Amino acid sequence: MRYITRGIALGAALALGGGLAAAGTTAASAAPATGAHTQSLYAPSALVLTVGQGDDAASAGIQRAVTLNCTPGPSGTHPAAKAACADLRSAGGDFEKLTTVKTGVLCTKEWNPVIVTAQGVWEGQRVNFDKVFGNPCEMKAAKGTLFEF
Amino acid sequence: MRYITRGIALGAALALGGGLAAAGTTAASAAPATGAHTQSLYAPSALVLTVGQGDDAASAGIQRAVTLNCTPGPSGTHPAAKAACADLRSAGGDFEKLTTVKTGVLCTKEWNPVIVTAQGVWEGQRVNFDKVFGNPCEMKAAKGTLFEF
Repeated sequence: MRYITRGIALGAALALGGGLAAAGTTAASAAPATGAHTQSLYAPSALVLTVGQGDDAASAGIQRAVTLNCTPGPSGTHPAAKAACADLRSAGGDFEKLTTVKTGVLCTKEWNPVIVTAQGVWEGQRVNFDKVFGNPCEMKAAKGTLFEF
Repeated sequence: MRYITRGIALGAALALGGGLAAAGTTAASAAPATGAHTQSLYAPSALVLTVGQGDDAASAGIQRAVTLNCTPGPSGTHPAAKAACADLRSAGGDFEKLTTVKTGVLCTKEWNPVIVTAQGVWEGQRVNFDKVFGNPCEMKAAKGTLFEF
């Protein structure tokens, strides 16, 4: 499926005379001209991920924030962009699934809430995700690679 | 102000034994260890900017999306990250100010709405901005460098 998409994308890029950015070709001859639209043949995936203290996204104190792009290739300030994109892709962009506390993890139950958020776009669809954990132990048991920054 | 901040940051980094990322020093000796928290001495600024068709952020079809980081230095998939960060900084992070239609611009009045959005974090504060323009001409007259992608 991925290869087919790439084939179509490449064909389209050739047909359009190379005016669009085609990933995987070294013929991306020059930096995009200033003011030119960097049209992509891929649905955009661009996210801002944050970790903060509090139980409400709007008011939480943001401790850390990173960017993550997954198309055409993984990039951004996320320290493990490649692994994070792979996880997101295998979960079909389901952030809830990627932040579920693993079974068998023991955490105390004190209320010291931490919140993770993901905002932006995943494969062309708007993302507005947040999840509150009761305390940092619970977050640690759930955050996976995606929120490991 | 910036220099003072940098001075404090550098001092703190030295005091903490170089475990934190200190911008502007070439002593950022190695890539961050996997799993290590990339703590920053700066308030984070990480954004996802989108341009789409429609008049509602939640339902608009997203045409383009880029990421933009402004601290410690400009980066991201935005084609003019440096200029966009400079504009944001000089506007004090006021997205409304940066997307005001310039006076003296003549546009037709047909309703073909386009929407720009900015989500993420600006200097540690949560950003959730969107602005609808009646048609692409109006957007063109207002988007500045920030939404020029």
